[in-house]
Amino acid sequence: MVEYARRIGRVQGSVIREIFKMMADPRIISLGGGSPAAESYPLADILAISDELLRDQGIAMLEYGQTTGYAPLREAYLEHLVLPKGIEAEPQNVVCLTGSSQGIFLAFDVFLDPGDTVLVENPTFLAPLNLLRKAQDNIIGLAMDEQGLIIEDLVEKVKKYRPKMLYTIPTFQNPSGRSLCAKRRQRVAELAAEYDFVVLEDDPYAEIRFRGAKLPPIKSFDTAEHVIMLNSFSKTIAPGLRVGAAVARREWAAKLELVKQGADTHTATLPQAICAEFLRRGLLPAHLRHIAPIYEERYQALERGIREHFPADTVYTRPDGGMFVCARLPGRDMAQLNRRAVSEYEVAFIPGAPFCVEPGEGADCFRLNFSGSAPERIATACERLGRLFAMA
Amino acid sequence: MVEYARRIGRVQGSVIREIFKMMADPRIISLGGGSPAAESYPLADILAISDELLRDQGIAMLEYGQTTGYAPLREAYLEHLVLPKGIEAEPQNVVCLTGSSQGIFLAFDVFLDPGDTVLVENPTFLAPLNLLRKAQDNIIGLAMDEQGLIIEDLVEKVKKYRPKMLYTIPTFQNPSGRSLCAKRRQRVAELAAEYDFVVLEDDPYAEIRFRGAKLPPIKSFDTAEHVIMLNSFSKTIAPGLRVGAAVARREWAAKLELVKQGADTHTATLPQAICAEFLRRGLLPAHLRHIAPIYEERYQALERGIREHFPADTVYTRPDGGMFVCARLPGRDMAQLNRRAVSEYEVAFIPGAPFCVEPGEGADCFRLNFSGSAPERIATACERLGRLFAMA
Repeated sequence: MVEYARRIGRVQGSVIREIFKMMADPRIISLGGGSPAAESYPLADILAISDELLRDQGIAMLEYGQTTGYAPLREAYLEHLVLPKGIEAEPQNVVCLTGSSQGIFLAFDVFLDPGDTVLVENPTFLAPLNLLRKAQDNIIGLAMDEQGLIIEDLVEKVKKYRPKMLYTIPTFQNPSGRSLCAKRRQRVAELAAEYDFVVLEDDPYAEIRFRGAKLPPIKSFDTAEHVIMLNSFSKTIAPGLRVGAAVARREWAAKLELVKQGADTHTATLPQAICAEFLRRGLLPAHLRHIAPIYEERYQALERGIREHFPADTVYTRPDGGMFVCARLPGRDMAQLNRRAVSEYEVAFIPGAPFCVEPGEGADCFRLNFSGSAPERIATACERLGRLFAMA
Repeated sequence: MVEYARRIGRVQGSVIREIFKMMADPRIISLGGGSPAAESYPLADILAISDELLRDQGIAMLEYGQTTGYAPLREAYLEHLVLPKGIEAEPQNVVCLTGSSQGIFLAFDVFLDPGDTVLVENPTFLAPLNLLRKAQDNIIGLAMDEQGLIIEDLVEKVKKYRPKMLYTIPTFQNPSGRSLCAKRRQRVAELAAEYDFVVLEDDPYAEIRFRGAKLPPIKSFDTAEHVIMLNSFSKTIAPGLRVGAAVARREWAAKLELVKQGADTHTATLPQAICAEFLRRGLLPAHLRHIAPIYEERYQALERGIREHFPADTVYTRPDGGMFVCARLPGRDMAQLNRRAVSEYEVAFIPGAPFCVEPGEGADCFRLNFSGSAPERIATACERLGRLFAMA
């Protein structure tokens, strides 16, 4: 039989996508996925906007679009999510994406030859790890503390490995929930200019903040234009629309466009137009104010559940927003406990190992999602997990 | 400044995507693009379906979906576009795509290592040529006659190059407009099994037929499961939805899913659901009956225009459907004439060279699209081109 390309042997299916399939079973309480609070989607607004767009714009919603994106979305994205954050940019700096995860794929494709070094927070999001392994890039993990990646470790590894790129999720990081403090954000931008590497700033969770002060994106310190910022409408409007956007130096945006041509021609027009109208009508700030307490209530339910039911030696992060808490049960095998949690307790979470750079790391860590389940279900899940963990 | 990956130096921007930008100028009559007849989009149906889906299914339209696709679309695609063509398949054989062009990208990623040989009709569609060049694959062109690719040439090159894949557009081929006859389709499937190569059957135009008998897909002869068939809803419903689908042997469908995870997670749900409902309600057959005469009228306008206005030595194809006619003005430089056509005559077409495998080929050929312009505009364009060509 025809053989697959060699790279296919290096690709692992996403643990999360597999758990996603399992979540179709309504008996399972999933703290595994990465879904926003579905009850909070602005359905009525989307319905009204979609209806109006198809009625008023008609054929324009159904035609082929430009690879760089639907022009009103590029403008609305700039006006509402880029310029207010202290970033100077024009439409030529923007590429609309089929979800911000496409931006990770495109940026890697534009910059990375096999063997090139990419620095990542350790642990980090699965999708970039899978893509980097598939492409035989050299992945180097960075240490983190409560303020995000540690600058001294970054400097040391930048000097040692001369990386081509730093992939970072600075705000409510996946899976840790941690945020990079403002001072370190500035240093990251300075180091990128000094040592000439690309910063891929993946910032899909920043708008989902329920406490603490907003942090400026790394891109806002990017006077030397070494940062590509990725944003997503999956968490702020709805993930099924599959719309995100990137802002980058003009030549880099053009290269992202070039590889997007070959990947999917352009992003679906109607979902882009829905996002554009949602921004243009000024609906985002009120929507974010509406959902913040929903996320906070769920986070509090999780935090209380951990505190009341998990073993006393449980270590866990306390994010100010986003969707994830990262926890650690020192010495326990969380992959095995996850299998038992699902089969015996009907609760799912994600074990920590897949998020880690090196084999064997993170075996006693796990990620808990608080955004996708109602507070009562989170409480029930924690109580059940507490019973399981008590025996481990 | 950070260097791009080496592959980026091998990527050319799509000539068509560049011409697409130019088409925003309403003074230009474009016979260049590949757009369907926009007036024919089933806007009222899409509006009603979209409205109903958001009202009745609500949050399900906005949630993350499975990478393999929206389940009702996988089923409707099988029932309406796969099984009736004599192909045996189940939902596990189907992957929904962000446009069928994504299927080309995914299939190449699954099977091709640098240096692997891919056979293609010469000339062929730009997107696969660009992707193959970027990946440093070995591209070998196949000769065609009025019945499509020539089997003797295919056999010779299969034996000589031991290709891993044949990429073919069997029906109303882009750019030639030619269709592979049924007997050759069967031979292609047999040869793929005998010599163990993948057939990537890209069939986005097959449903747009205004005369002649339907042809069975290569996939319908695929008893050894060596064929991946790609279909698109861009030409039959609307391109801006960016929805297509692939049907393939189960293990291959699983690999397409695996690489799609890293490319865009999943295809936008609402556009997939619109396509599913359009099929489920049985709207496609009537819509195809409605649009066939529109395409035929436009084709006839082009054919008449060529006959009446182009030089006597013009050679051109006479397709039974699809969107393209390929023409040749022996000895003339069509790239140069295209520039003059745009700047002096406000008419655009696509020169032939970019569709060809080897440099220097196709310089006196060009592609004319008849689907995207009204008959009167096609007539005007031909008359203007006739004046230009008379001097060439």
